[in-house]
Amino acid sequence: MAGNSFGKIFKLSTFGESHGPAIGGIIDGCPSGLLLNQELIRYEMKRRRPGQSALSTPRIEADDYEILSGVYEGKTLGTPIGFIIRNQDYRPSDYEALKDVYRPSHADFTYQEKYGFRDHRGGGRSSARETASWVFAGSVARQLLPLTEIMAFVSAVGPVTFSGSYEEGDRNKIDSSPVRCPDEGSSAKMIAFIESLKKSGDSTGGVITCVIRNCPAGLGEPVFRKLQSKLAAACLSINAAHGFEYGSGFAGASGKGSEFNDAFRVSDGKVITATNHSGGIQGGISNGMDIYFRVAFKPVSTISMEQQTVNSSGENVILKASGRHDPCVVPRAVPVVEALAALTLADLMLEHRCSRL
Amino acid sequence: MAGNSFGKIFKLSTFGESHGPAIGGIIDGCPSGLLLNQELIRYEMKRRRPGQSALSTPRIEADDYEILSGVYEGKTLGTPIGFIIRNQDYRPSDYEALKDVYRPSHADFTYQEKYGFRDHRGGGRSSARETASWVFAGSVARQLLPLTEIMAFVSAVGPVTFSGSYEEGDRNKIDSSPVRCPDEGSSAKMIAFIESLKKSGDSTGGVITCVIRNCPAGLGEPVFRKLQSKLAAACLSINAAHGFEYGSGFAGASGKGSEFNDAFRVSDGKVITATNHSGGIQGGISNGMDIYFRVAFKPVSTISMEQQTVNSSGENVILKASGRHDPCVVPRAVPVVEALAALTLADLMLEHRCSRL
Amino acid sequence: MAGNSFGKIFKLSTFGESHGPAIGGIIDGCPSGLLLNQELIRYEMKRRRPGQSALSTPRIEADDYEILSGVYEGKTLGTPIGFIIRNQDYRPSDYEALKDVYRPSHADFTYQEKYGFRDHRGGGRSSARETASWVFAGSVARQLLPLTEIMAFVSAVGPVTFSGSYEEGDRNKIDSSPVRCPDEGSSAKMIAFIESLKKSGDSTGGVITCVIRNCPAGLGEPVFRKLQSKLAAACLSINAAHGFEYGSGFAGASGKGSEFNDAFRVSDGKVITATNHSGGIQGGISNGMDIYFRVAFKPVSTISMEQQTVNSSGENVILKASGRHDPCVVPRAVPVVEALAALTLADLMLEHRCSRL
Amino acid sequence: MAGNSFGKIFKLSTFGESHGPAIGGIIDGCPSGLLLNQELIRYEMKRRRPGQSALSTPRIEADDYEILSGVYEGKTLGTPIGFIIRNQDYRPSDYEALKDVYRPSHADFTYQEKYGFRDHRGGGRSSARETASWVFAGSVARQLLPLTEIMAFVSAVGPVTFSGSYEEGDRNKIDSSPVRCPDEGSSAKMIAFIESLKKSGDSTGGVITCVIRNCPAGLGEPVFRKLQSKLAAACLSINAAHGFEYGSGFAGASGKGSEFNDAFRVSDGKVITATNHSGGIQGGISNGMDIYFRVAFKPVSTISMEQQTVNSSGENVILKASGRHDPCVVPRAVPVVEALAALTLADLMLEHRCSRL
Repeated sequence: MAGNSFGKIFKLSTFGESHGPAIGGIIDGCPSGLLLNQELIRYEMKRRRPGQSALSTPRIEADDYEILSGVYEGKTLGTPIGFIIRNQDYRPSDYEALKDVYRPSHADFTYQEKYGFRDHRGGGRSSARETASWVFAGSVARQLLPLTEIMAFVSAVGPVTFSGSYEEGDRNKIDSSPVRCPDEGSSAKMIAFIESLKKSGDSTGGVITCVIRNCPAGLGEPVFRKLQSKLAAACLSINAAHGFEYGSGFAGASGKGSEFNDAFRVSDGKVITATNHSGGIQGGISNGMDIYFRVAFKPVSTISMEQQTVNSSGENVILKASGRHDPCVVPRAVPVVEALAALTLADLMLEHRCSRL
Repeated sequence: MAGNSFGKIFKLSTFGESHGPAIGGIIDGCPSGLLLNQELIRYEMKRRRPGQSALSTPRIEADDYEILSGVYEGKTLGTPIGFIIRNQDYRPSDYEALKDVYRPSHADFTYQEKYGFRDHRGGGRSSARETASWVFAGSVARQLLPLTEIMAFVSAVGPVTFSGSYEEGDRNKIDSSPVRCPDEGSSAKMIAFIESLKKSGDSTGGVITCVIRNCPAGLGEPVFRKLQSKLAAACLSINAAHGFEYGSGFAGASGKGSEFNDAFRVSDGKVITATNHSGGIQGGISNGMDIYFRVAFKPVSTISMEQQTVNSSGENVILKASGRHDPCVVPRAVPVVEALAALTLADLMLEHRCSRL
Repeated sequence: MAGNSFGKIFKLSTFGESHGPAIGGIIDGCPSGLLLNQELIRYEMKRRRPGQSALSTPRIEADDYEILSGVYEGKTLGTPIGFIIRNQDYRPSDYEALKDVYRPSHADFTYQEKYGFRDHRGGGRSSARETASWVFAGSVARQLLPLTEIMAFVSAVGPVTFSGSYEEGDRNKIDSSPVRCPDEGSSAKMIAFIESLKKSGDSTGGVITCVIRNCPAGLGEPVFRKLQSKLAAACLSINAAHGFEYGSGFAGASGKGSEFNDAFRVSDGKVITATNHSGGIQGGISNGMDIYFRVAFKPVSTISMEQQTVNSSGENVILKASGRHDPCVVPRAVPVVEALAALTLADLMLEHRCSRL
Repeated sequence: MAGNSFGKIFKLSTFGESHGPAIGGIIDGCPSGLLLNQELIRYEMKRRRPGQSALSTPRIEADDYEILSGVYEGKTLGTPIGFIIRNQDYRPSDYEALKDVYRPSHADFTYQEKYGFRDHRGGGRSSARETASWVFAGSVARQLLPLTEIMAFVSAVGPVTFSGSYEEGDRNKIDSSPVRCPDEGSSAKMIAFIESLKKSGDSTGGVITCVIRNCPAGLGEPVFRKLQSKLAAACLSINAAHGFEYGSGFAGASGKGSEFNDAFRVSDGKVITATNHSGGIQGGISNGMDIYFRVAFKPVSTISMEQQTVNSSGENVILKASGRHDPCVVPRAVPVVEALAALTLADLMLEHRCSRL
């Protein structure tokens, strides 16, 4: 497994199993001289951590991080920023019954096939606990782009969808909703749906919309490090993510060029596009307009109902899980999507410094 | 622009502008001892090249490649395979009128913003001509996976959709359709739609479905080189691609865990899943079931109708393009999607050799 | 600073300042299933750590490492191995006087020039304390190559040289010498020289010879990842290292081909070379013979004598250092050289798995 | 073999066998807007090419390169620069006798061991013909650093040494000497020695000194991409290179800190060092002083005398080579060393743009 790094210039490398002593990582390539705002980091970490509302997993993790290097007198040194987040509320005994059973649609079977050996406790390395490190690093990345706003929200929970566009993202409305949907009516229906699933022991998926405002033009490196490629690769690293689209996305496939082309216009001496079906990206490079994309998540794999599966002896068995879980992780994935977008942009922003003589 | 390489072990690096002397690339990391089947390479190259049917661009390119190194007495040496494809039917004069105008939804503006200077002829480096190199390299990659079948087809052209599942892919039916759709009825409707667009000077998009059969379990490197991340990043490198989903994709977001989990079963001593909403990938690693994914393409940006845009002097102008183009590139993107899937799998297959002691 | 990783498949990334809370790193790409021998790790760590003899720095560091991930039930999981080593005996106040002064031949000035800001305490990131992480990781790497012996020793301390060849390396003799020289007579002279320097507040350099026995043929990736290139790059990462040579090295430059060519011979059905001026490497690839190389170290920069220098206000000043230091670090660099050789070989050994079909 | 790329931002990837159709490469990451001086490229190419004097190989290669992309209207586009150099005077029949024999101290045996298959003609990929591509790319790199002078010269041919320091490098004197040594007396002795070797069918090695003047401070990325590490790795990629030292090098190992420390001084408001034993590099980062280093080359492996060796059937045989060769390649390696230094600096110069906020 040599795929635990993200980024080329601003590079995050991570480690950690869900029920080992700690998770953490190293940010290499953060420029020197950044006065790190730790309030912002703690705010983002808090948004992601479990146990925030009655809707999510009861696992309690303070998610207190410790910065071990790379910051001196409050400022980044330009040297690698090492950080760890101790695992606290881990209960390996919860997972004893799962030692020899492959949970359906989890990574248990594939890790066993790939490595011949695995840490079965809470999914080990495949757990979404990993995303705490991403949020930490994303929050540092974000501070390199102080003028750029990165905002994600829940636009669907199971069959309940919020049909508003990316332009309706509003940080206050999002954060005041337990499901992080900016629309109150949709929000209420999403909550009701999640509560009904909780009772039945079932789960669901959803969709997150992310918009990036005030992103400078020029980010993205053709042809294999296009902005959309890096965003998609990042978002599909999130557990349960099964789809990514930007701009006109899948819907645009059915239209015509005469409807979907974005006419350039000059406005106040600045080149803009009259519409934004391109989603702020053309030829793999940001064009200065709003960047927006959507990420689809499949239903959570952990459910409390009985399921058919196989054990490591190759026998068909019945599984009834008892571990803690969220019926819908999509609201908690909102800060994760933002973090990955920030990591992607910070990396490409630094790389872009090398584009011209 | 330092993003012109794809892959870590089996690595493709490419170069070339649409109307320069040649395009080409280097495959580094191809194992030694592969008896290269050049018939297969020519077959794939021919499937991609322009001028194949009345539906596509009239630009004629033989797309004859020349292998400059890495192959001796018909076999790969383990050394880099250098190859070039000369540009022949280039008509820079066709583009003289576009020198100072930004074509809507093309990469003209963003290249200018990023580099301060660009080759305007046929889009320069941003042209889909680049994909000829991918198809060459993909065909080599494919030969490293002789037991694995990689097959893509067109599942939508504009509003005309083929609703069959990934399981209905059939190489003969696909190749006998001018639009590469395995369903005759849908195929006819797609052709009619494209012809109508040709008359009106308009364009459309579409969707490609790809299925990979007999892929070994274990490919994909958690957590940032997951199989789906690499496939998505690859496919979103294709010009006009705006969306990627695998397995249950966006549709799965609205379902429940109890419906979408894939129960493991033992069948003939082998672990399989009863359903395949996971799309053959769990935890970022192939599980041995069919891998399938879909790629959405926006409508082709080049249309013959008048469009509003801006020139490099910052003035609003009217553009009426006269360059050659396809009203719908999706059928020609079929071998490109297959090539990128092959490149992704070959790279991860080699990397997987290092997973265990 | 995005250069804190070493290796491509077996990859070490490190972090940490000399007087921050901790140093540490991540090993990504260690294959699964390795039963980790922690006795060996502690043995190597102990060989490197300060305070081992009256000859070296009085800084006391237990160098207890904590493994945070990647190992379960004693075996590697194939997931990243995160580890930290807390700094204990740090005395930032020792360095208060150095805050605004550039120590001659240290990295103070260049870090200030590069980053515009630095942690002056003990050299911050530029301290040789970093090498503790290398020794930890090198000891893991070594266990991937159980049949290969990697052995370094001191062949010169200042003007005192041991003229024996690489073949005279013997682990017991090396470890029983306080200066890690396998020859008793030379050893005694080296000790006497270091003690005289200690009294005068001066320092010296030296040379380390390293021999690698039973290395499989085939390691090294032409043309830019040749075995000698990777070994040289690794060894010149060590603080104070100023030269690297392998095989016939600088001395060979003055000879003739007829004297220095290594004739191939068949011996017991195996191809060997009659002499070994190639140092076990031909065309950048190991040939199965002993690999040997030498690393030159300049005198330690920290001395107790008065020195002329410049402060951060741009004034010429006199510096008299009072921090703790070694008059000769070469003996302590022996396990560091071995660790870097092990990291290099483990990485190339895994990469070599991809050389053939 | 996945090691055919050099550099991270300014990245050269190469391909080609000595007797295949062509060699060449891709420069990815060259910034846009560089007005390429092709006179300079041709000048450098000419300095390296064979057949320049009676002293070197009679193989005649015009070494005309063709630029295939990345340059438009004389300026770099920021897109990859593809280039090829056709092989012309290749005589595969010269090598027929060598098909099944391993030439002593060549890469024949190790390539066979690594890949199980090789192109025996002229060493295939292991030939120094590869360096033509490096010189091409190095000449482009150099133009990114117009104020920095990179100058190498021959300081030893076999036992004949020029004892002058790096400061005595002078372009005119170097270029007017057939052996590229700036000292006339030494030059004459070197020539005489090479001529005597030519007669006896023998060969020799030598040493190249390189000095880099006016290099900006701040280049080099601690801790594993230190400037000296990258220079050493680059230079040890050259065929026959067996040693690298910078600054005080091996000689410095025998001295004392009080003699070898470089005192900082303020001169005309600029910080300089009174001496330069550090070789312009401290802590892996350039300090603004002259950078200098030396590279040792073993004697050329190809000699005309009879040698003992082994064939591919595992039999001891006698080899008497008849291929063309240089008795001493060191003079021709001068532009190669310069090219690699330029590639290293250009890459680190671009990376340094990301060091600070």
